Amino acid sequence: ISLADRLLTHPGRLSILYFCVLIALVTLLLLLPFSTHDWVFTNFPVAFFTAVSALSTCGIPVVNTAEYWSMFGQVVILFSIQFGGLGVMTFASIVALGVSRRLKVSQRMLTASELGTTKLSEIKSVLTVVLGTSIIAEVVTFTLLLPELFRVNRGQIGRTLWQALFYAVSAYNNTGFTPDATGLHVNRWGVGLPILISAFVGTLGFPVVLNIVQSVRRRLSPKRWTLHTKLTLVTTGILVLTSLAWFLLVEWGNVALFPADDPGMKLRRALSAAVMPRSAGFDISWVPEVTPETKVFMSLLMFIGAGSSSTAGGIRVTTFAVIILICGASFTGHRDVVVFRRRIPRRIQMTAVSVTTACFALVIVGATSLMFVTGCDFVDAVFEACSAFSLGGYSVGVASAGNPSSMFILAGEMIVGRLGPLTIAYAISRPMAPEPIRYPQENIIVG
Amino acid sequence: ISLADRLLTHPGRLSILYFCVLIALVTLLLLLPFSTHDWVFTNFPVAFFTAVSALSTCGIPVVNTAEYWSMFGQVVILFSIQFGGLGVMTFASIVALGVSRRLKVSQRMLTASELGTTKLSEIKSVLTVVLGTSIIAEVVTFTLLLPELFRVNRGQIGRTLWQALFYAVSAYNNTGFTPDATGLHVNRWGVGLPILISAFVGTLGFPVVLNIVQSVRRRLSPKRWTLHTKLTLVTTGILVLTSLAWFLLVEWGNVALFPADDPGMKLRRALSAAVMPRSAGFDISWVPEVTPETKVFMSLLMFIGAGSSSTAGGIRVTTFAVIILICGASFTGHRDVVVFRRRIPRRIQMTAVSVTTACFALVIVGATSLMFVTGCDFVDAVFEACSAFSLGGYSVGVASAGNPSSMFILAGEMIVGRLGPLTIAYAISRPMAPEPIRYPQENIIVG
Ligand SMILES: [K+]
Ligand SMILES: [K+]
Repeated sequence: ISLADRLLTHPGRLSILYFCVLIALVTLLLLLPFSTHDWVFTNFPVAFFTAVSALSTCGIPVVNTAEYWSMFGQVVILFSIQFGGLGVMTFASIVALGVSRRLKVSQRMLTASELGTTKLSEIKSVLTVVLGTSIIAEVVTFTLLLPELFRVNRGQIGRTLWQALFYAVSAYNNTGFTPDATGLHVNRWGVGLPILISAFVGTLGFPVVLNIVQSVRRRLSPKRWTLHTKLTLVTTGILVLTSLAWFLLVEWGNVALFPADDPGMKLRRALSAAVMPRSAGFDISWVPEVTPETKVFMSLLMFIGAGSSSTAGGIRVTTFAVIILICGASFTGHRDVVVFRRRIPRRIQMTAVSVTTACFALVIVGATSLMFVTGCDFVDAVFEACSAFSLGGYSVGVASAGNPSSMFILAGEMIVGRLGPLTIAYAISRPMAPEPIRYPQENIIVG
Repeated sequence: ISLADRLLTHPGRLSILYFCVLIALVTLLLLLPFSTHDWVFTNFPVAFFTAVSALSTCGIPVVNTAEYWSMFGQVVILFSIQFGGLGVMTFASIVALGVSRRLKVSQRMLTASELGTTKLSEIKSVLTVVLGTSIIAEVVTFTLLLPELFRVNRGQIGRTLWQALFYAVSAYNNTGFTPDATGLHVNRWGVGLPILISAFVGTLGFPVVLNIVQSVRRRLSPKRWTLHTKLTLVTTGILVLTSLAWFLLVEWGNVALFPADDPGMKLRRALSAAVMPRSAGFDISWVPEVTPETKVFMSLLMFIGAGSSSTAGGIRVTTFAVIILICGASFTGHRDVVVFRRRIPRRIQMTAVSVTTACFALVIVGATSLMFVTGCDFVDAVFEACSAFSLGGYSVGVASAGNPSSMFILAGEMIVGRLGPLTIAYAISRPMAPEPIRYPQENIIVG
């Protein structure tokens, strides 16, 4: 079998190949002088890191986006975010669909696994909804942002349009890049709220948005939503509320996070702090100022991440929910893992455990490497590794343009965070085969 | 049903009750003036912490054992270590066996679960082996320690005998208490090696020792050892070798850990550093001097811990092995979790996942609480929480006699570490029942 055939028959490998090609392309564009404000050649680590950060929709900046890159460079970054956000495979399929009006089976399967649906016949309509939802969400956010940004920019129309577009794309795709040097104007509801809602919808993931949109169309009650939608919404809700409570309780007196003595302002900031770390990462000015305890809490939150097949990373909320459900079943002496009157299949349980373990190992190895390379604190290293892996976009400044090793470590975390450990594991493993021998069971003592 | 009946029919509850009574008793004895060197009343947190630390065989000291406590106090501590090491239930059963020559069924079941055997008829012979192995191991260690300790103590016979006894009990039971104010004389092979080997055997756990002893008696080849024995030995071996490599590579230049430029001395220290953190915790002088990276590594090692039903804690090596095996099976596309040509039962897999998750949550909550209470670094808080939970006995000095809250947090970690999250979960849960309804399966997307 030729290399091309082997790649095409193996969705995981193709997915990784596409992503690598995109990274190479964007890195090349960013290296060139016309991508920078000062017409200089960017050094390789900075261009590579920025390309990975944008394509993975992570958004950790290593240089100031608005000041370092030229308009061309910023357009490249914006396109990278949009391509990364739509999903590498989804984008490839959309292009193929537009070009040939039909999809190869291998590409359909790929897109299907990316979007979390298994019915090949549904792919075309799914792609339409994905692209449609993205465009609608971005246009709505863009429109809502215009009036307030117009005021902030004191009537400069070109600047306002560009910032609104950049924020709209960046928010829905959950990337933390900001088009202005001072960071996000989160202290105004007019800018903060549309971005917050757009980012939150983006974290749910296409399968959830799709399911809700279809259910509303068919006038189905929420009880008939899929198990995946229910589990994602409930877990997300619990995580956001816990997070909101944590910020209001622990960081109430933190002047850097809550500068004014205005309760409305505090609530706005806390809401933003509760929703954003899970994937968006706007408004990063206050992050290095939080207490170490909050850094630990945020690291855990980022590690859990957001919805499956969303623009956000982490082990995903459903993975976390399955682990908790296994604990619940085990500690109450049940054999079946049951939620919302449905059993979680055993294969899904094994996947959840292995994804969590692999990601935990990745984050710990990444954090320890960062400590070796930069000499930073453990808590900062964990925060930065979790943020990169979960595509969170926050940073406490461990990676710097002067330390290439630290940038490569974080870029590695982002790539795995975007592609997912499962994709990579499947790509390097042989195709699955039925068990040739079933060995006898033997008990061991654990715990 | 009366309270006594409900306790007796529920092994987990009885186990917790026994342990609480022992803690209360030892705390009371240590509170009294004749337990201290200076004939003063010890304050409650210090007495409680020392009682829990000794009974759980953790061994983190909050006062200098040899200088603060009187001979009576030290004898109380020594007995606590021995009772804690034999296992609360095993000890209770031995007493009952000695008194009445027969065991109640509930007590047999309890001891069975403690020792990891399920055949009730074997309990008596198991108890004999447990007690016998303990006594033999301690007498051998005691004898081997005598000549070198005699030299160290410059011929003081009483002092030598007492130190040898204390070390022998403390080593096999994996408690880090030392009878001399200066700490362990690990820079001499004559003292270091017997303690090291005794501690290592103690970490394997009674079921492994029992299985090997029985196999040798019956002249069975190692191939016919139980799966539990094989898995424990292999995982332990890998962990110790990894640990040894880490200390030699990362800490080679650390003057506090390897003071002399003598390779033999360096190997001895590295060996001790590789074996001890997993549960024994002797020779603590160098611990606060290691690099933060090594603290992270040691925390992971302590979290994994040692063998099931051993005097050491942690999630146990078999639990860790099962998690890794699940990952291996999942990433290579296998449905069965197979090792040494045996399938790991599904119930064991669920137990391993839930124990690991619960213990991880416990350690993180403990570490964050320590940060709130003492204002220490995250890395130190994690180290101390892991050490307490895994009954490791090392300390970087986060808990101090002046901060009662920190002592109570660590004591809580030790109690859970000793009893195990499973015991506690079973104790508070209702008795298991067969599943009344089997709900239909539904797929979700994870990872
Ligand atoms: K992001
Ligand atoms: K110990």
